[in-house]
Amino acid sequence: MSQISQSTVRRLSHYYRVLEEVETEGGRVISSRRLAEREGITSAQVRKDLSCFGSFGRRGLGYDVAHLREEIRAILGLGRRWRVAVVGAGNVGAALLAYRGFARQGFDVVAVFDREPSRIGARLGGLVVQDVASLPAVVAREGIEIGVIATPVSAAQDVADRLAAAGVRGILNFAPRKLFVPARVTLRTVDMAMEFEGLSFALARAQPPRRRARG
Amino acid sequence: MSQISQSTVRRLSHYYRVLEEVETEGGRVISSRRLAEREGITSAQVRKDLSCFGSFGRRGLGYDVAHLREEIRAILGLGRRWRVAVVGAGNVGAALLAYRGFARQGFDVVAVFDREPSRIGARLGGLVVQDVASLPAVVAREGIEIGVIATPVSAAQDVADRLAAAGVRGILNFAPRKLFVPARVTLRTVDMAMEFEGLSFALARAQPPRRRARG
Repeated sequence: MSQISQSTVRRLSHYYRVLEEVETEGGRVISSRRLAEREGITSAQVRKDLSCFGSFGRRGLGYDVAHLREEIRAILGLGRRWRVAVVGAGNVGAALLAYRGFARQGFDVVAVFDREPSRIGARLGGLVVQDVASLPAVVAREGIEIGVIATPVSAAQDVADRLAAAGVRGILNFAPRKLFVPARVTLRTVDMAMEFEGLSFALARAQPPRRRARG
Repeated sequence: MSQISQSTVRRLSHYYRVLEEVETEGGRVISSRRLAEREGITSAQVRKDLSCFGSFGRRGLGYDVAHLREEIRAILGLGRRWRVAVVGAGNVGAALLAYRGFARQGFDVVAVFDREPSRIGARLGGLVVQDVASLPAVVAREGIEIGVIATPVSAAQDVADRLAAAGVRGILNFAPRKLFVPARVTLRTVDMAMEFEGLSFALARAQPPRRRARG
């Protein structure tokens, strides 16, 4: 399991969601076909992905829902909680703090920072916005391991440097630029345009329907 | 090329970005190794992905940057412009409207809607927020093909219904719930927690470094 691609990890996240849903509905066994249930994933792909991490299914019987969910949970590092700091209290930061899905998956946002005096001290998503100058002390005191960069592009590298120096292990970057971090820090950049590209890819391949006439 | 997975599309988006970068730097030829340059993608994967769409490279010579970029651009449906409406003028909507990457990739946000009287008429990202009741007329008049759902969970299905009825071809959903749309509408749901899961996966597999002592 030395080379697991980001694509595989995304599919594992997807399987995890399907398993949660099926478990909520009371299902106890699931087929690779049901797990595939998303455009472009085949049952064969599901079996291949899951075989990378050990043998979870029984031929002809499908997968045990609760067991597989727990296994994927552990593989994705969701068997524990992660303490997260968001840097940037603008729209992206506010959107992230309002998002309910994170806590459920084990990500606790415990601090939010900004450098604008007008924002420092304001409340956002139940937290008080702190001065980014206090980031090293807060990261150490709160045991923060993941930093989220939700600043404008111009500030992003500086924030990455501060987060790395403060000792975070992972950075999730929402600023659309390439950042440089020490090798011991894991960096992911979220590119929102990619989400649109997935859609335009599908639309470009579909036959455009005739536009309905409108009064 | 009947079954192209979302994972492949994401990798194509990635290759496209690397090609843009290399082209900006004046590079004319690129190796599959350089195209792979991201955690977990191998050169073999790059060659396999690109071979799905035709033969772009010459053995031992690498890929022609400008040509490959144009090909991927066409495959991703970026060879044309898409007209987009955002529904929901809260934090997520505001963050999307502020994002500069979309226009560059061919996505023009031409309308933004909300149902809150306090938001209607306000300006957001250079647009005036319109009443969601006017959505059908605006979609038809403006030739909008993609709708983005940036509302709270409780409103998301209603907005999806309105967008589908208004005739959009694709929907990008940021609300964390499952939506139902007619088969002729392509739906993508953006799950922000998945981005965190990619990070926690990497961190869970890495050895946690010893925490530095701090005064």
